Amino acid sequence: MTTIQRRPTSSKSLPSDLEIAQSTPLKHIDEIAARAGIPTGRLEHYGKHVAKVSLDVLDDLKDQPQAKYIVITAITPTPLGEGKTTTAVGLAQGLEKLGKRTMLGLRQPSMGPVFGIKGGAAGGGYSQVLPMEKLNLHLTGDFHAVTAAHDLLAAMVDNHLHHGNKLNIDPQTISWRRVIDINDRALRNVVVGLGAAEDGVPRQTGFDITAASEVMVILMLATSLRDLRERLGRIVIGYTYGGQAVTAEDLKAAGAMTVIMKDALQPNLMQTTEHTPVLIHAGPFGNIATGNSSVISDMIGAKTAEYLLTEAGFGSDMGGERFFNVKCRTSGLRPDAAVLVVTVRALKAHSGRFKIVPGKPLAPELLAENPGDVRAGAENLLAHIEIVRSFGVHPIVAINAFPTDHPSEHAAIQEIAESAGARVAVSTHVADGGEGARELAQVVVDACGQDTNFRYTYELEDPVETKFEKVARGIYGADGIELSATARKQLKLFGKLGYGHLPVVIAKTHLSISSDPKRRGAPRDWTLPIRELRLAAGAGYIYAISGDMRTMPGLGEHPSAEKIDINEQGEIVGLF
Amino acid sequence: MTTIQRRPTSSKSLPSDLEIAQSTPLKHIDEIAARAGIPTGRLEHYGKHVAKVSLDVLDDLKDQPQAKYIVITAITPTPLGEGKTTTAVGLAQGLEKLGKRTMLGLRQPSMGPVFGIKGGAAGGGYSQVLPMEKLNLHLTGDFHAVTAAHDLLAAMVDNHLHHGNKLNIDPQTISWRRVIDINDRALRNVVVGLGAAEDGVPRQTGFDITAASEVMVILMLATSLRDLRERLGRIVIGYTYGGQAVTAEDLKAAGAMTVIMKDALQPNLMQTTEHTPVLIHAGPFGNIATGNSSVISDMIGAKTAEYLLTEAGFGSDMGGERFFNVKCRTSGLRPDAAVLVVTVRALKAHSGRFKIVPGKPLAPELLAENPGDVRAGAENLLAHIEIVRSFGVHPIVAINAFPTDHPSEHAAIQEIAESAGARVAVSTHVADGGEGARELAQVVVDACGQDTNFRYTYELEDPVETKFEKVARGIYGADGIELSATARKQLKLFGKLGYGHLPVVIAKTHLSISSDPKRRGAPRDWTLPIRELRLAAGAGYIYAISGDMRTMPGLGEHPSAEKIDINEQGEIVGLF
Repeated sequence: MTTIQRRPTSSKSLPSDLEIAQSTPLKHIDEIAARAGIPTGRLEHYGKHVAKVSLDVLDDLKDQPQAKYIVITAITPTPLGEGKTTTAVGLAQGLEKLGKRTMLGLRQPSMGPVFGIKGGAAGGGYSQVLPMEKLNLHLTGDFHAVTAAHDLLAAMVDNHLHHGNKLNIDPQTISWRRVIDINDRALRNVVVGLGAAEDGVPRQTGFDITAASEVMVILMLATSLRDLRERLGRIVIGYTYGGQAVTAEDLKAAGAMTVIMKDALQPNLMQTTEHTPVLIHAGPFGNIATGNSSVISDMIGAKTAEYLLTEAGFGSDMGGERFFNVKCRTSGLRPDAAVLVVTVRALKAHSGRFKIVPGKPLAPELLAENPGDVRAGAENLLAHIEIVRSFGVHPIVAINAFPTDHPSEHAAIQEIAESAGARVAVSTHVADGGEGARELAQVVVDACGQDTNFRYTYELEDPVETKFEKVARGIYGADGIELSATARKQLKLFGKLGYGHLPVVIAKTHLSISSDPKRRGAPRDWTLPIRELRLAAGAGYIYAISGDMRTMPGLGEHPSAEKIDINEQGEIVGLF
Repeated sequence: MTTIQRRPTSSKSLPSDLEIAQSTPLKHIDEIAARAGIPTGRLEHYGKHVAKVSLDVLDDLKDQPQAKYIVITAITPTPLGEGKTTTAVGLAQGLEKLGKRTMLGLRQPSMGPVFGIKGGAAGGGYSQVLPMEKLNLHLTGDFHAVTAAHDLLAAMVDNHLHHGNKLNIDPQTISWRRVIDINDRALRNVVVGLGAAEDGVPRQTGFDITAASEVMVILMLATSLRDLRERLGRIVIGYTYGGQAVTAEDLKAAGAMTVIMKDALQPNLMQTTEHTPVLIHAGPFGNIATGNSSVISDMIGAKTAEYLLTEAGFGSDMGGERFFNVKCRTSGLRPDAAVLVVTVRALKAHSGRFKIVPGKPLAPELLAENPGDVRAGAENLLAHIEIVRSFGVHPIVAINAFPTDHPSEHAAIQEIAESAGARVAVSTHVADGGEGARELAQVVVDACGQDTNFRYTYELEDPVETKFEKVARGIYGADGIELSATARKQLKLFGKLGYGHLPVVIAKTHLSISSDPKRRGAPRDWTLPIRELRLAAGAGYIYAISGDMRTMPGLGEHPSAEKIDINEQGEIVGLF
């Protein structure tokens, strides 16, 4: 999920995100669209400040030059997140300050976690996406459409069992669960179909959060309405007793699912605090799924600006790797540079000397001036620089400055980055908006002037096992992979069924480059364990489960929902 | 639910509903709003043809004269429905033909059944609400908001149990289920909270369809954002071990639910095939809930036209009774007339000589000219005329003409209606649009020129049992009521907890005025059995369960979802 920057208590006083958001006059979305060269006729308005963009615009703009394409990713984050979204917003605004027409692509935040512990996800300070209450709630209903399409298929699966199971589906093999965009732990494991005979066939299943739906990844990867229709049809929900894959097409569900998703396929145009255009579209999980905004959004974005920025979830080993190996492979777009967001506190945490727990104040020693602690965490940054470079792309280190940082600590980061030949800049976009990101923007412009030599970590023709191995060794720095007996069986099955050509995703923790969330820095001498494989035939990838992957969050004892309300004036309070 | 007119195979050839819808050029919603005197600044656009109307318009228009207020209800329908929506649309267009500024209020159809057997619900022929694919799918997301608010509360209930149950809730008493807007029989009865300790507390519960949610009724009855907030807070989810009611307010969930519902509280402006303005808002079930469009929609509508039409679900004993006793009581609006939609086939069915099964062709004898069969079903019409009259409101009988009808049969209906002193008119709005409803419109105008003497069936001060009894005797023609032991216990409990002042809803079949769906006409010599009572403290009523009430439909062996798809041009096919 998109992470947000939680500013520590600061000597420099800044209004709250909500105060800044509410005091920023927005421009009409037509004006924002005009800036991006999108004709008003191609907009479907959702109020004055949000509009869906028709895919017809791809044809309108096909003769426009291609934007420089920059992905914003990060070093291995702490559980607090390192401000990737704020940096992406700040950088977009910084590029505009340099007179460069810029478009930013971001994922839509999931509504469920807004009512958990997370609060909103719309950037922060003077680098936010507005209106933030729209972004954090229903927006234009795309997540609801994903939920409805996913759950219609689930209903049709159970309905098929109920009406005699003509396809001969083995209920034990059904992997298609249901989804809901709410943190609801009680739905993780459920038995459905209880009651009388007319109430369906009893079986155990469960609910995931909507961001974990394969339909969400399909929305993220689809290149056209026709492609969306075909991917939905290819979804495998389980197997027959004879071992054949059963698809959404077999159940005649894919057409109706496409109709439900038709509007959702259009990206959502919004604006930043400084009126830079932003396309918000799709929000697949960063751990088990692809963790990037949509292909179609970037395809459109690439024709609307000189610079197209896009954010990839978590570190360069997670959303970053999937950006390069899956998203770029699907879109055909080639990145010119990759920004690695880094913070003083994250590098200090990678020293292994501190523990950061969400919801608890940071240790005072972590906030004290200590460039030595920063240097002690250098390995993580160096590893991420190498990951970016392994794709043939120029790495740029963006120091997301906090008021509690010290110049000596920034200097230490600069030294580390430059020792590896990476470009580096400090950015104060949270406090200063685009002005604070001018230096970073200039570094990005310089990097984009250089030739790149883009390459994937693996080829589609590689055997599936080799793909996993290449990612484990080449990206994670593991010594190799170790497949469980189950995973070996699944590997064989997927190969036999003809899915061996698909790209891969490795579902692992985002808190370490390794598969062990406790290991800081750049772990060496370890082997990636692969417990089981899963098939996302509609989205179009095979994913390996390495570690406990939670697909349905729970609520805490006092979820943020308890504080969210309307005030006497009918305004929303408590969202941030 | 809103029913639609299924035209039988006809000698008169009419294009399909979809063809008519697609060949009708729509006006921009600003133009529709202008017709209704709604300032463009009060619109939140959702594309060019749908807009939400800000509640601020109530203040803008407060000095406007009050519209004449007409409810469209029906005799006891067959399972096919008798075209109440088409007649409401046709009548609105007919009034416009007479030069009367008209506004129509309708419920939003539920998306789930669109993928079941029902097809769309947007009127029919030349009396439709457009764009019909918006109306039948997500529209502006109000149903999704109801689902999300409802299920957030459910998650917070289970989360409370998980984190130690400080409120001391007795899990056995939890009546708050979950909802989803999909026909999914397998979710009727489920066990949640399975798995490990961190996956919640196991207990049995279930899902209803979103239209059956109390949150939907709250949306329908709320008179302001503040009122919405307070009603949500009053929802009772179950009881403590000590027998105290536990509310959404106790769980601190109501504020967040209100924030989720904030946009949904604004009615949705659309247009008919002839560009008459329509406010679409809320869609509570007609059997267990209130079966009417929203109070706020009618409060706004009453200031935007000379004539405000509103549809009440099923017969005058069902949605009609709730319109008068619950909706009007809440809104303070007073109806000037009530239209009873009647069809030849329904009156023939009330003769008891025919059986109508959805999905099967009508018997040829039912289509043959036979005014005697019509007269044999007269009792049902006469009973509905008396029901309307019991509220002190003028009844108007609207014959919804089918191409297979015969003039002698229309004459028979006219004779029956006039024998009871009711006004009557034939309407051919499906084939002819507003022109076909001119005569009906004139009759409505005449009726609205007469004084009314509006009264309720019961007073809020009546004991709850008396309220049920007055509805059973006064509306249904029963000899009385018979409460089960359970219902008696609940009656006492609700009284003790201070809910005795609430109005009542009786959940019974809509296929008979009695509680037995097989009894046609106007059944006599029967007693209304009340199996159990339920409390909808947030919506603000107590409801009695009389008979098996299904709150989650299933899909058939070949649901319409199998035929719904996009074509090569990306257009939706199979929705009608």
